[in-house]
Amino acid sequence: MNVGFVGLGAMGRGMAANLVRAGHAVQVWNRSPGPVAELVAQGASEAAGLEAVFANDVVISILSDDAAFESVLLDPRLLEGAAATVHVNMATISVDLADRAAALHAEHGLGYLAAPVMGRSDVAAAGKLNIVAAGDSGLLDHVEPLFAAMGQRTWRMGDRPHQANVVKIAGNFLIACAIESVAEACALAEARGINSTDLVDLLTSTIFPGVIYTGYGSMVAERRYEPAGFRVVLGLKDVSLALSAGAEANVPLPFGSVLRDSFVDAIAHGDADLDWAAVAEVIRRRAGLAEAGS
Amino acid sequence: MNVGFVGLGAMGRGMAANLVRAGHAVQVWNRSPGPVAELVAQGASEAAGLEAVFANDVVISILSDDAAFESVLLDPRLLEGAAATVHVNMATISVDLADRAAALHAEHGLGYLAAPVMGRSDVAAAGKLNIVAAGDSGLLDHVEPLFAAMGQRTWRMGDRPHQANVVKIAGNFLIACAIESVAEACALAEARGINSTDLVDLLTSTIFPGVIYTGYGSMVAERRYEPAGFRVVLGLKDVSLALSAGAEANVPLPFGSVLRDSFVDAIAHGDADLDWAAVAEVIRRRAGLAEAGS
Amino acid sequence: MNVGFVGLGAMGRGMAANLVRAGHAVQVWNRSPGPVAELVAQGASEAAGLEAVFANDVVISILSDDAAFESVLLDPRLLEGAAATVHVNMATISVDLADRAAALHAEHGLGYLAAPVMGRSDVAAAGKLNIVAAGDSGLLDHVEPLFAAMGQRTWRMGDRPHQANVVKIAGNFLIACAIESVAEACALAEARGINSTDLVDLLTSTIFPGVIYTGYGSMVAERRYEPAGFRVVLGLKDVSLALSAGAEANVPLPFGSVLRDSFVDAIAHGDADLDWAAVAEVIRRRAGLAEAGS
Amino acid sequence: MNVGFVGLGAMGRGMAANLVRAGHAVQVWNRSPGPVAELVAQGASEAAGLEAVFANDVVISILSDDAAFESVLLDPRLLEGAAATVHVNMATISVDLADRAAALHAEHGLGYLAAPVMGRSDVAAAGKLNIVAAGDSGLLDHVEPLFAAMGQRTWRMGDRPHQANVVKIAGNFLIACAIESVAEACALAEARGINSTDLVDLLTSTIFPGVIYTGYGSMVAERRYEPAGFRVVLGLKDVSLALSAGAEANVPLPFGSVLRDSFVDAIAHGDADLDWAAVAEVIRRRAGLAEAGS
Repeated sequence: MNVGFVGLGAMGRGMAANLVRAGHAVQVWNRSPGPVAELVAQGASEAAGLEAVFANDVVISILSDDAAFESVLLDPRLLEGAAATVHVNMATISVDLADRAAALHAEHGLGYLAAPVMGRSDVAAAGKLNIVAAGDSGLLDHVEPLFAAMGQRTWRMGDRPHQANVVKIAGNFLIACAIESVAEACALAEARGINSTDLVDLLTSTIFPGVIYTGYGSMVAERRYEPAGFRVVLGLKDVSLALSAGAEANVPLPFGSVLRDSFVDAIAHGDADLDWAAVAEVIRRRAGLAEAGS
Repeated sequence: MNVGFVGLGAMGRGMAANLVRAGHAVQVWNRSPGPVAELVAQGASEAAGLEAVFANDVVISILSDDAAFESVLLDPRLLEGAAATVHVNMATISVDLADRAAALHAEHGLGYLAAPVMGRSDVAAAGKLNIVAAGDSGLLDHVEPLFAAMGQRTWRMGDRPHQANVVKIAGNFLIACAIESVAEACALAEARGINSTDLVDLLTSTIFPGVIYTGYGSMVAERRYEPAGFRVVLGLKDVSLALSAGAEANVPLPFGSVLRDSFVDAIAHGDADLDWAAVAEVIRRRAGLAEAGS
Repeated sequence: MNVGFVGLGAMGRGMAANLVRAGHAVQVWNRSPGPVAELVAQGASEAAGLEAVFANDVVISILSDDAAFESVLLDPRLLEGAAATVHVNMATISVDLADRAAALHAEHGLGYLAAPVMGRSDVAAAGKLNIVAAGDSGLLDHVEPLFAAMGQRTWRMGDRPHQANVVKIAGNFLIACAIESVAEACALAEARGINSTDLVDLLTSTIFPGVIYTGYGSMVAERRYEPAGFRVVLGLKDVSLALSAGAEANVPLPFGSVLRDSFVDAIAHGDADLDWAAVAEVIRRRAGLAEAGS
Repeated sequence: MNVGFVGLGAMGRGMAANLVRAGHAVQVWNRSPGPVAELVAQGASEAAGLEAVFANDVVISILSDDAAFESVLLDPRLLEGAAATVHVNMATISVDLADRAAALHAEHGLGYLAAPVMGRSDVAAAGKLNIVAAGDSGLLDHVEPLFAAMGQRTWRMGDRPHQANVVKIAGNFLIACAIESVAEACALAEARGINSTDLVDLLTSTIFPGVIYTGYGSMVAERRYEPAGFRVVLGLKDVSLALSAGAEANVPLPFGSVLRDSFVDAIAHGDADLDWAAVAEVIRRRAGLAEAGS
């Protein structure tokens, strides 16, 4: 398949390489030239510009955030001239922007799919991503060979693109909930003279296995928040996205409201750039347990 | 070892049988006679009364709740005459009662250990429990062979018995948090036309494996709350135990506060005797999503 | 009317004096003798003991808390021999205890009314209390002349005594809500460089007049929490009473839950004995605004 | 003084009339012509267009919301040619927009003041508004005679215009808190068989006087939410403005978070267009008390 690929960041690089490896004709575009050269060395071709990218049958993009996506790709003149069948946006963006993007593409006769991914850059490089996809099912069928080259499984969530974004936001919301839950449990334990590491070890060895409780649990117990895999400010942003997505659909999210207050509190104490597990320090401070370690 | 065993409910039966199987001399006592006969058939002996139970080297008890433990075993006359070295309470009781029990046993020169367990009756029967233990380390060493016969692992949490109870309460608190988190995520998804079962399937297949998210996740998604493994009223009781244990140690638990309000709300709507996963209906009702299924 | 009066604290003293002044025959009893002498000097007589008190037609008591009431007056032998028509409990006690007291009095053929009051000791001395009363309406009619001597108005709230206690608890809950509301508004203002005193001055001069917003508002704005009119620990106790009264009747109180966490937080920071307006420091700390003043 | 006045809604009409009455030369502009004729009949003159309005010494505007203000007046071409000394925005707008408006006016050498008001249209007509003002103190001195003609008092809150908007938002936040507090207290009372109207009557006659508790208290107690003075959707908007203003300044607002969830819940149940006191039905529903009345 002819694929135009926009966004060769930590994630995009591995994903594009896997498309090349699977035999697709991949034309890449990136703001900075380094990653382009790297991909060309692996068999991709360099796109002359974004217009060229949109001349391919399928366009895949994965840019860092709403602002980048909006400024680089949501350009009526770009979409107007596009020959592509479909644009697959694999970035995590807001529900609102997903709706606007879908509408704008439709105006110009272009298909639009949302397909945010679960997994970090090493998983992307290994072609083992979980791909959360939504949009027209015919279009999803059409690009499935591409998903198969990049991921271990595609999870179809509905026929409106924003549904995939909602699912991705819900997943991040659940991670934040798990962190806060563990933080409260650890504060309770510590105030009673129990070692948090012992508590987390017990729980993750028994009823709470998995990367989230194990990874964030040990960070919370050991109060180790650097290097930051995902920063507190981004945590606040994601929780706010969940709250907005909820409010627009009339869904109150009381755990989300607690999380929002906690992330604001963390930022008020200078922890904006620590890993979002640092939200655990909020409850320790509130319980008067924070002096020892921070 | 000579062991007196009190409480042959669903859990105690399997635990006592495993002690017999491991070669210990087990004398059993139970309010109703059926389970006694069953254990005797497996090689245990029947205790003439509670005094006889407390003539053994080690007494193990696992009664249903605070009230049962208090009325059956926290009897000064019983403890006064006891020849036992140590009483191991394997039930889930409150922190307060654990402290009173430890003090009363100490007054009468009797050791007291708390060792609540994780795992249901089938796990107890298989001798695969996780045993959360706290109290004097010499006494814990003394009874470890008994723990080894009943469980796959003993998790020592401190030298004050109530610490094991705090850990058990913290574990149940985390389960309640997981249920509420999943409920909010499902409500968000459903309001956006996404199938909750698909969402739960994705999450439990990827970042949230394990029995809690898988089991409760499917109950929440499918709105299946019967038969009740653990009832809503008990959920409110456990969350209240966590909040009390927190307040006594000056630890606010904002997620716990949300949970308490939600369990009260569930009971106000007649769901007291459903499985505590039914707390998920609270957020569905609040979001106007409840009509279809309940 | 012949009145036995128990409890000559700051409130009771003024109330008993007003009964004497209105021409009633008042027999007083108090644990410490000082206040008794004072009342006798004003025309009351001294009761030989509690049995003598309960030989009067009406018994009025106002003891400091649940424990004092329970230990001094909830004595079956005392009630058994009582000739009194009715016992009017004017203290602020829990709903639970009110129910037990009503039941115990009924068992011994004695009427029981709850009539907690609003107003401080100067208001009590001036005979200007607001009296919140509940219980049998015939009994309420019977004692109304006594209420008239002590208060400016009697507010009847129902025919079950505990209803007056619920109303009193609800009133204190509303005060706590007002304090927290003002604290959050002041934190918001201060973080934006606005003077809290100016904000409180504006609000209390316009839409929020009255003693609560004016008094607590200025305490919060000026961060002045001593001397304590009502301490933080008592605030936590009252909020917990409201939450319990709610839970028993299946009423979630989300503002109450926030308050509970905030009072626990205040106590964790050593503010247990400050005026309960000091709960305002919790939100200032959380917002990183607390350094200047505390 | 020469005054250009934009926005002759329910509030603006009375305010402009009071300026005329005080002897100022008032040139009015409004989208619909009816109110213009009315003001001209009272002695104002009609502005040929917005450019003419901005040729006056002082421009006063009071448009309905952020969107109206932004589209009608935040026009660089309009401000570029303006001869006015200062523009006084008396509408309730967001903190963000206030900052952008101040910056844009400064770019074009025009003063900008924020002066939102407290009071409804009858108060505006009577010239008895409370005016919350912020911005350059020299400019505030300059326009004080105009404020004096429209209000009973000017409350200066700082030298940055947005500070007046923060204060106005904080005031509305406090009103929402009072409504929710009363709602929770009433639900508690009702669940105990106490008449809410009696409770509100007691409270507003004693410690909670003033228009807010009296007015909203009786609406909540009587479940009377029409006609809507201020709608539930606007309540959600205002609470969201408070939360945003808080988050931007690192101030968590836990009562605000509860309010947000409650307003979302109210909207989910079809109450968007009722008076915002209808948020009280949320807690009644949660407590299972709602059937009788709604």
